Amino acid sequence: MQVAVEPPYSVTVGPGLLQELLPEAVVQERVALITDENVGRAHGQRVVDALTAAGKSVQLLVVPAGEGSKSLALYSSLLQDLAAAGLPRDGAVIALGGGVVGDLGGFVAATYMRGVAFYQAPTSLLAMVDASVGGKTGLDLPQGKNLVGAFWQPRAVVADVATLRTLPLREFQQGTVEAFKHGLLAAPDLLGALGRGWAPDAPVERLTDVVARSAAVKAAVVASDERERGVRAHLNLGHTLAHSLEAASGHALAHGDAVAYGLVYAALVGRGRGYADLVERTLEFLRWVAPAPLPRTDFATLSAFMKRDKKALGGQLRMVLLENVGRPVIVSDLSDLELEAAWAQLEADL
Amino acid sequence: MQVAVEPPYSVTVGPGLLQELLPEAVVQERVALITDENVGRAHGQRVVDALTAAGKSVQLLVVPAGEGSKSLALYSSLLQDLAAAGLPRDGAVIALGGGVVGDLGGFVAATYMRGVAFYQAPTSLLAMVDASVGGKTGLDLPQGKNLVGAFWQPRAVVADVATLRTLPLREFQQGTVEAFKHGLLAAPDLLGALGRGWAPDAPVERLTDVVARSAAVKAAVVASDERERGVRAHLNLGHTLAHSLEAASGHALAHGDAVAYGLVYAALVGRGRGYADLVERTLEFLRWVAPAPLPRTDFATLSAFMKRDKKALGGQLRMVLLENVGRPVIVSDLSDLELEAAWAQLEADL
Repeated sequence: MQVAVEPPYSVTVGPGLLQELLPEAVVQERVALITDENVGRAHGQRVVDALTAAGKSVQLLVVPAGEGSKSLALYSSLLQDLAAAGLPRDGAVIALGGGVVGDLGGFVAATYMRGVAFYQAPTSLLAMVDASVGGKTGLDLPQGKNLVGAFWQPRAVVADVATLRTLPLREFQQGTVEAFKHGLLAAPDLLGALGRGWAPDAPVERLTDVVARSAAVKAAVVASDERERGVRAHLNLGHTLAHSLEAASGHALAHGDAVAYGLVYAALVGRGRGYADLVERTLEFLRWVAPAPLPRTDFATLSAFMKRDKKALGGQLRMVLLENVGRPVIVSDLSDLELEAAWAQLEADL
Repeated sequence: MQVAVEPPYSVTVGPGLLQELLPEAVVQERVALITDENVGRAHGQRVVDALTAAGKSVQLLVVPAGEGSKSLALYSSLLQDLAAAGLPRDGAVIALGGGVVGDLGGFVAATYMRGVAFYQAPTSLLAMVDASVGGKTGLDLPQGKNLVGAFWQPRAVVADVATLRTLPLREFQQGTVEAFKHGLLAAPDLLGALGRGWAPDAPVERLTDVVARSAAVKAAVVASDERERGVRAHLNLGHTLAHSLEAASGHALAHGDAVAYGLVYAALVGRGRGYADLVERTLEFLRWVAPAPLPRTDFATLSAFMKRDKKALGGQLRMVLLENVGRPVIVSDLSDLELEAAWAQLEADL
């Protein structure tokens, strides 16, 4: 599929693409391949070999696995690695890995020599269905996540679903939650595919189909709002509560788990407003995902975190709700009363 | 004047604008004002006072003066200062100072929370006529200058020529060289204004007029080529030799001085090709500028640096020449012979 930003770029999904497609998708001769230790061990050498066989000169840069790599210190060191190796302005950066590698590699690409070509080769389900599409790059600061970054669209996204085979189930589920969210927002037929039999060892046709349809939702939203000024906010469905739960847990709760709770919460708030009743459907999905337990917290704490979120957005607490599947709306007239009632109901329903 | 990029922004030149215009030009309520020690001492407090009087909440951040501040270390520390103070996404960054503060502050603005509003308040002649217009931001790496950065256009440029009164003459002359270059490229009537009586204590009308006309040249070029893919390269007139001279001197030679030599050199190469003879005119200006002596070097050394420049641009050594005043051309079929002959002539002419 194409992502219709300017210039447009392609998202290609399928098995074996790291070797079959990536070397020809990358048109630059000099490339820096950024990956993490885990992905590098599993796929690094064969990607280097495939790029080299296509006549490219490849610099392999391996960072530690985990969110800690989204740091200014590692960013600085990568930039200096590129400069020391003399990556030219018409070279390229490829991010091979999950969301962390994509965010870090993308920010390096966005800012090295004021921007070089960038390619996403996502290897986690979350990165395939969500993070690799849309051009958000970023680093964390001690003061918070993603406080530094740039919008920098990739030239192409190459999602090789064969890499999902070795993805731990817990990580696979994190991506599944975002795919489910995309289904709720704009692809109802996707929802049924995300249940029984949906696992890293599912047939490649099913993996390819679900990833492609879910990424297509992200691509369509991004194309209509590249810099997150309007409808791109719909992608925050489930994230208002999720961010608060993550913060309340000291970021011990995984993001996908938090969003799974957040989707039920949004359904509860929506039902309270008389929108279509999506509570049972989201609860059923939540149970299937089997997230880590809710962090021990109370509404006052969560509400304080939600209000901090609001401040960052300049004015009103805004929340994405669903009038029905496929019909997201943004509401900004939420009372503490209804927010607290929905929280009480969520705790009762679990 | 307006800079016709998307969105367009205004460049306003005149005396007293830091107090009279800046507070109303900046529409955001929360602002971070980045300046250096020297400029901060001269103008910092009254700018803070003017912004505060206009109802804004101001965080003043003072960095050491000099190119050393364009570092990843200082960048990191500024980002954390902003995050610790909670500058929101709808806040703004103002750079008050010369090119270093503008480049550093601009890159902070481009990347804090993936980009916040940015304003340029240039206080050096070089920053007014050149660096503050065009959206280039950047940091240096140990491996080279401006190897990190982003294109990030300011929302407005407010050039208060009263700040030129206290600018050291040597620094004033550095800016004069770029203004002269703009005259050669596209504003012949500017050339006559940059001689006798052109100094920090010139009448404000003359300061305002020259800065405005010179910045207008930059604005027109930038508007037609925001991301430096085509005609923006014309601004490199005189810079091919200049960068080599700076490198050969270990960056002891000031940039403006180097460009003054480079403008004569370009005239010599151009005359050798049968273009209009601008050698005497550029030499006369060079003598008036009275730059530091040429670094002790030879053509082989300079040529090696020029070729490294070429590599960075991917292919041919490209040089900007003038068919005549106001008629820049880019040539890429330069022989070593003609480059060396022009160098020998430059040494002989001095």
